[in-house]
Amino acid sequence: MNLDPETDLSFTRQLKAPRALLWECWTTPEHIKHFFVPRPHKIVSCEIDLRVGGKFNTTFEVDGAEMANNGVYLEIIDQKKLVFTDAYSEGWKPAPDPFMTAFVIFEDGEDGGTTYTAVARHRSIESRKTHEDMGFFDGWGTVVDQLEEYALSLK
Amino acid sequence: MNLDPETDLSFTRQLKAPRALLWECWTTPEHIKHFFVPRPHKIVSCEIDLRVGGKFNTTFEVDGAEMANNGVYLEIIDQKKLVFTDAYSEGWKPAPDPFMTAFVIFEDGEDGGTTYTAVARHRSIESRKTHEDMGFFDGWGTVVDQLEEYALSLK
Repeated sequence: MNLDPETDLSFTRQLKAPRALLWECWTTPEHIKHFFVPRPHKIVSCEIDLRVGGKFNTTFEVDGAEMANNGVYLEIIDQKKLVFTDAYSEGWKPAPDPFMTAFVIFEDGEDGGTTYTAVARHRSIESRKTHEDMGFFDGWGTVVDQLEEYALSLK
Repeated sequence: MNLDPETDLSFTRQLKAPRALLWECWTTPEHIKHFFVPRPHKIVSCEIDLRVGGKFNTTFEVDGAEMANNGVYLEIIDQKKLVFTDAYSEGWKPAPDPFMTAFVIFEDGEDGGTTYTAVARHRSIESRKTHEDMGFFDGWGTVVDQLEEYALSLK
C-alpha cells in the first residue's frame, strides 16, 4: 500500500503463528480480550460484527476507568487484511473527532509463520505525532507480542 | 435507518423514473455530469470505481473556480442503496476535515417510479447547521429535479 510518512505509522514483524490462527484471534471477541491492549490494561467487553460497516466495539479498562471505543470495519479480506476505524459507528454514523484508521495485513511468512504488518493512518500530521508520542510503537509492539504468545498457546 | 435529527439532513421524494435508471445515472460518470450540481454550476470531471473503498471523485466548476471533491464508496447495494463520503480518498486515506457521509436510497415507488431518499450525515451539530444554511434542501432538491428530468430523457 502507499503509505504517507507524514500521517501514517506502521511496522512489519515476523510472527511464528500461522495466518489463519492470527486472523481468528483478531476477529473473535473472546480472543481479542487476551491481547488487544498492553497488560495490565484490560478489555472488559468486545463486540464484533465481521462485515464491512459492521461494528468493532471494545471497552478498555485503563487505571480503573472504562473507555469505550466504537468503530466499524471498512475492508475485510479473509485471513489477509482487516481495515477498521473509529471514524464511524455502526450504520455509518460519523464520529465527531475520529482518531485513526487501522490496517492489519497478514501474509505468509517463513516456516509456516506470518509476515504481519500494522498500519495506523491519521487525518493530520498532528494526530500522527500525538499517536507516536502516546507510544504507538511500544504499545502496538506489545500487543503483537501478546498476540503471538496467545495465538501459539491455542495451537 | 436510524436518523439523528441533530446531525442528519434528509428528505424523501417520489420520482417518475424507475430505480434501475436512476441507479445508472448515479453510478456512471457521463451521467453524473448532467445532474449532480445545480445548474449553472458544472461538473468538469468525474471518476467512479464502483466498489466499497473505490473512488468517487468529482470536480465542480463554481463561478469559474474548480473545486475537487474526492471521496469513496462505503456501501453499494445494487439499485437500492449507495453510501459515499469525503472522509476518505481511495486506499482509505483519511481526509483532514471530512464534511459528510451521503446515502441515496432507491425503493420501488408508484406506477413504476421510485421512492427516493437522500440523507447527509455530519460529524457534529455545527456541520449539520452549516450544510443546512448553505442551502442543503434547495440544492439537493434541485439536483433531484435535474436527475429526474435527465433520467426520463434517457427512457
